[in-house]
Amino acid sequence: MDIRFDHAAILTVDGEDRELSDATLCVKDGRIAYIGGAEGAPQDYSPGRTIDAKGNLLMPGFVNAHTHLPMTLFRGYANDLNLQDWLFGNIIPLEDKLTAEDVYLGAMVGAAEMLLSGTTCFLDMYDFADTIAVAVEKSGLRAVLCQGMAGDGGNMQKIAKAKEICQRFQGAAQGRITTMISPHAEYTCSEEFLLACRDAAQELGVGVHVHASETAKEVRECMERHDGLSPIRYFDKLGLITDKTVLAHCVAIDSGDLETLAARGAHVAHNPGSNMKLASGFAPVPALLRGGINVALGTDGASSNNNLDMWEEMALCALMHKGFSGDPKAIPAKKALRMATIDGARALGLEDETGSLEVGKKADLILVDTQGPWYYPRGEMVNHVVYAGHSADVKMTMVEGRILMEDGRIPHVDMPALLDEFNRAALALRAR
Amino acid sequence: MDIRFDHAAILTVDGEDRELSDATLCVKDGRIAYIGGAEGAPQDYSPGRTIDAKGNLLMPGFVNAHTHLPMTLFRGYANDLNLQDWLFGNIIPLEDKLTAEDVYLGAMVGAAEMLLSGTTCFLDMYDFADTIAVAVEKSGLRAVLCQGMAGDGGNMQKIAKAKEICQRFQGAAQGRITTMISPHAEYTCSEEFLLACRDAAQELGVGVHVHASETAKEVRECMERHDGLSPIRYFDKLGLITDKTVLAHCVAIDSGDLETLAARGAHVAHNPGSNMKLASGFAPVPALLRGGINVALGTDGASSNNNLDMWEEMALCALMHKGFSGDPKAIPAKKALRMATIDGARALGLEDETGSLEVGKKADLILVDTQGPWYYPRGEMVNHVVYAGHSADVKMTMVEGRILMEDGRIPHVDMPALLDEFNRAALALRAR
Ligand SMILES: [Zn+2]
Ligand SMILES: [Zn+2]
Repeated sequence: MDIRFDHAAILTVDGEDRELSDATLCVKDGRIAYIGGAEGAPQDYSPGRTIDAKGNLLMPGFVNAHTHLPMTLFRGYANDLNLQDWLFGNIIPLEDKLTAEDVYLGAMVGAAEMLLSGTTCFLDMYDFADTIAVAVEKSGLRAVLCQGMAGDGGNMQKIAKAKEICQRFQGAAQGRITTMISPHAEYTCSEEFLLACRDAAQELGVGVHVHASETAKEVRECMERHDGLSPIRYFDKLGLITDKTVLAHCVAIDSGDLETLAARGAHVAHNPGSNMKLASGFAPVPALLRGGINVALGTDGASSNNNLDMWEEMALCALMHKGFSGDPKAIPAKKALRMATIDGARALGLEDETGSLEVGKKADLILVDTQGPWYYPRGEMVNHVVYAGHSADVKMTMVEGRILMEDGRIPHVDMPALLDEFNRAALALRAR
Repeated sequence: MDIRFDHAAILTVDGEDRELSDATLCVKDGRIAYIGGAEGAPQDYSPGRTIDAKGNLLMPGFVNAHTHLPMTLFRGYANDLNLQDWLFGNIIPLEDKLTAEDVYLGAMVGAAEMLLSGTTCFLDMYDFADTIAVAVEKSGLRAVLCQGMAGDGGNMQKIAKAKEICQRFQGAAQGRITTMISPHAEYTCSEEFLLACRDAAQELGVGVHVHASETAKEVRECMERHDGLSPIRYFDKLGLITDKTVLAHCVAIDSGDLETLAARGAHVAHNPGSNMKLASGFAPVPALLRGGINVALGTDGASSNNNLDMWEEMALCALMHKGFSGDPKAIPAKKALRMATIDGARALGLEDETGSLEVGKKADLILVDTQGPWYYPRGEMVNHVVYAGHSADVKMTMVEGRILMEDGRIPHVDMPALLDEFNRAALALRAR
């Protein structure tokens, strides 16, 4: 059904960062057909529904550039630990016991959380990617899925499985799903394994998604193992870093790493909340941006965040780098908003389809209720959204023209029943 | 009207940090009369309303330990600037043009924002404190009000006025308002002015609320002016620091300052969001806590935050110090929750009346809807509240047994009309 919005404030987040007021946006066949004054709207257009968006704001849906969707299962579990103790001491032992049913429930809850908070697209890395694809299909979200994997020469069947998943799901869900190849990290994969991942990605023509330089410890140990090479220089030596590579974290990087990322045109997925919660530190995002590197934003898994709320990441990003650098202009609000939307789409290779409101792009957008006092006085809407807004202000989430969430309701999901089933599965898993 | 809650989860935030489930809480004559199992509830008690709180959480309302309520008027104005340029270049020139009517509207909007996000009590510092008292009276909030002031020997009439306001409003609004004496900061007050403030506070028997060591620049310049004394040592020399003193910020402090604060039993109001937004830096909160100093949380004004949401400050506090110190145990969730509630009440001298749920204390509490996916899986409720919860989850805000906000509605306020009037006043002020 085609939908027309009238009397909306609009943040396009396009190349000109246009801000419109009292504007009309027309959705036709899942794409944006018109943005502008009501008087210029197309004549040959009969929407199935017309929405009076007075007092509301239309903007692109958020692109979460790094997460592990089913990790909602571990929310609140094993807090106040560093990456090492959290991951190896607590999370991996539970992950070894996961069933596809657990993963499905975790992914459905994660998808609901995304829809409620205005995320329309995400880049995921987890085992059971084929199961996650079912949740994506059902939720209506757009996603780049990666079968997460780690191992050595004895685990080559994992790469064969990941390739098979890429082939099966590239273009699935009416084109809403694309794929990447995803070795977990340097410290969990052997060289032989990483090289085979590189070859698989090249053969399939897809990108690579990997954790890199999340902590100083990781970098130190990598340098010991690999003749003084940092994870980024080591990955680069192996040919893993191209303009289709998304590196999550990049906290503990030096100027040589930065030059490598810039030279390859690689993308960084910055995870402010997770990096602080696991005490990993502050990624040098202002320097990455000065170096011309595309930096997107992610929540990481709900287990180290502890939610999937991109509003929070956007605010954290804009705030933490000011505090850490002493420069109040580090990451202005306008840039934080771009990082959370169009720069994410670019990292995922989807900038021609989503991430901004432009005629011809997919209608992946959110309607934000700006009647709360934190959106007053009027004017400075970008600042209000980034520094004062909340995820609960999202009234409607739309992907490819379909309304997936409206006024807190997700039409395709019985939330109390889902949460009840999810809760039983998550608690049983911890006791298993 | 007395109100009884049944089947609630409860975080008491009392001395034992008790967590109850399926519990009953009875409010009688504005105070908490009972907390425990339904079977033990008092027999001689006929509440006017009984609320089935299944799926919801009762906890103390937040105590915002440092704000400037009417600065909602400047929200979104003059962003991405440091303290110096923001305050002297942009804010003070507008503040010079403020009328009591502007301040009233700003305070009413700020109060509404507090009620919507679950704050029940705050410590304020601003000019026109008598006007702010009217908004507090009307809103039903609890507050410690300070007539903000700055000057030198030629401005002694300001101190006389502040004393008069203290005398007039101490115990006002049926006891919900108390007062303090509040010189703005070292860099805006002369020694003669500060000494007169000290004398006024002593004479009235009230506390002192002051900005201190917000930036390295402030400390450097203070040391140049005052024989190498930091703001804290200088204030201490003048006798301004006692166990009734609340110092906002304390970002740029050294171990000597810390020892002074500990020796005097003074209180620090930490403002995570404002300190990051103005690029002031990271207050050494873990060291302050190790030193036995009481640290409360504040939003600072909405103009440097840009909202009055204590959920965000609580999460920012728990996250930023982990990231900055590299210690994932720095400020655990449980401590962040205490800082946002009972430790704030202690700073304000109100710990016997508010800040935790205990029999005999005032019924200053909030009911939180925990049906959102971010509160699942069950268990670990404190972690969910601090790391995953949002202000929009607050279903009801109660002060002294009176429901001041329920399901997003504030009974005593016509929000659209208020916001409209506020908006016109704020925009007119900028154009004045
Ligand atoms: Zn990750
Ligand atoms: Zn302040």
